[in-house]
Amino acid sequence: MTTVANGVNVQALLEAREVLREAPGAAQFTWRASSKWQNGVHSTTRIQNFFGLGEEQQHKTEAVFDADHPEVFAAEDNGITPIEYLLVGLASCLTAGVASVAQNRGIQLRSVEATVDGNHDIRGILGVDSDVRNGFNDVKVTFNIDADASKQDIEALVA
Amino acid sequence: MTTVANGVNVQALLEAREVLREAPGAAQFTWRASSKWQNGVHSTTRIQNFFGLGEEQQHKTEAVFDADHPEVFAAEDNGITPIEYLLVGLASCLTAGVASVAQNRGIQLRSVEATVDGNHDIRGILGVDSDVRNGFNDVKVTFNIDADASKQDIEALVA
Repeated sequence: MTTVANGVNVQALLEAREVLREAPGAAQFTWRASSKWQNGVHSTTRIQNFFGLGEEQQHKTEAVFDADHPEVFAAEDNGITPIEYLLVGLASCLTAGVASVAQNRGIQLRSVEATVDGNHDIRGILGVDSDVRNGFNDVKVTFNIDADASKQDIEALVA
Repeated sequence: MTTVANGVNVQALLEAREVLREAPGAAQFTWRASSKWQNGVHSTTRIQNFFGLGEEQQHKTEAVFDADHPEVFAAEDNGITPIEYLLVGLASCLTAGVASVAQNRGIQLRSVEATVDGNHDIRGILGVDSDVRNGFNDVKVTFNIDADASKQDIEALVA
């Protein structure tokens, strides 16, 4: 396997896989977020602590996120909407996944961008029609990848 | 209904509901996020534009979010993990929901906090066992609400 420098410590992840295969209890994680209402639909959510590998853990720093509604919903737009945070999670999961798989396959990446478009009929959350799903109807993912690899290998990367 | 000052413009939301009942096309929103790989499993995700009410819209400012893995996964912990962003979305949705329902019921809120705990068996994402779900097994929600209302009314608020 070519030595590539995508910065993913695949070896550590493969070792963790073997350790956790024998110690499933250590694989039980609890992630936590706490949201404090500010005013209107504006809230501030904090994340720092989590549980995993059998004990309490914490991120190096506390992360703080504002959520609100945009001005077209008669709100102050102090942050993105709650549903957009789901897209942040999805998009960041996709780029990390591509980097990990590329590292494992010996593909040197130059750039990766994942764009997600989530279609959402807001009649669901407004209660206009109980038949309308309250959430995304579908999510489209677009990758833009530049790597030292054939088009075929890059396509296989995101498959 | 008592006049309460939770800051949610319920009137505007109820009017929007009536408008969208007659104009379902305007209720079709597309939310977007674009994630750029940095190094390892570290990415930066940006959100500003969305589509809704029949035209392109944008948040007042661009929001930028770092995602990474914690140091216990041999990464640099430049941000919370992708799965934790799902909890940010859920927790902020819950506080906004409580504020909106309280406003609609004439309940003056003093404070609202929603804490979410998501249990996640990481053997799923590591591929240890294909029978392990890759995602949350369950999510526990804890509310802490102080409001000018009876215990019963507050309980009904979160039901």
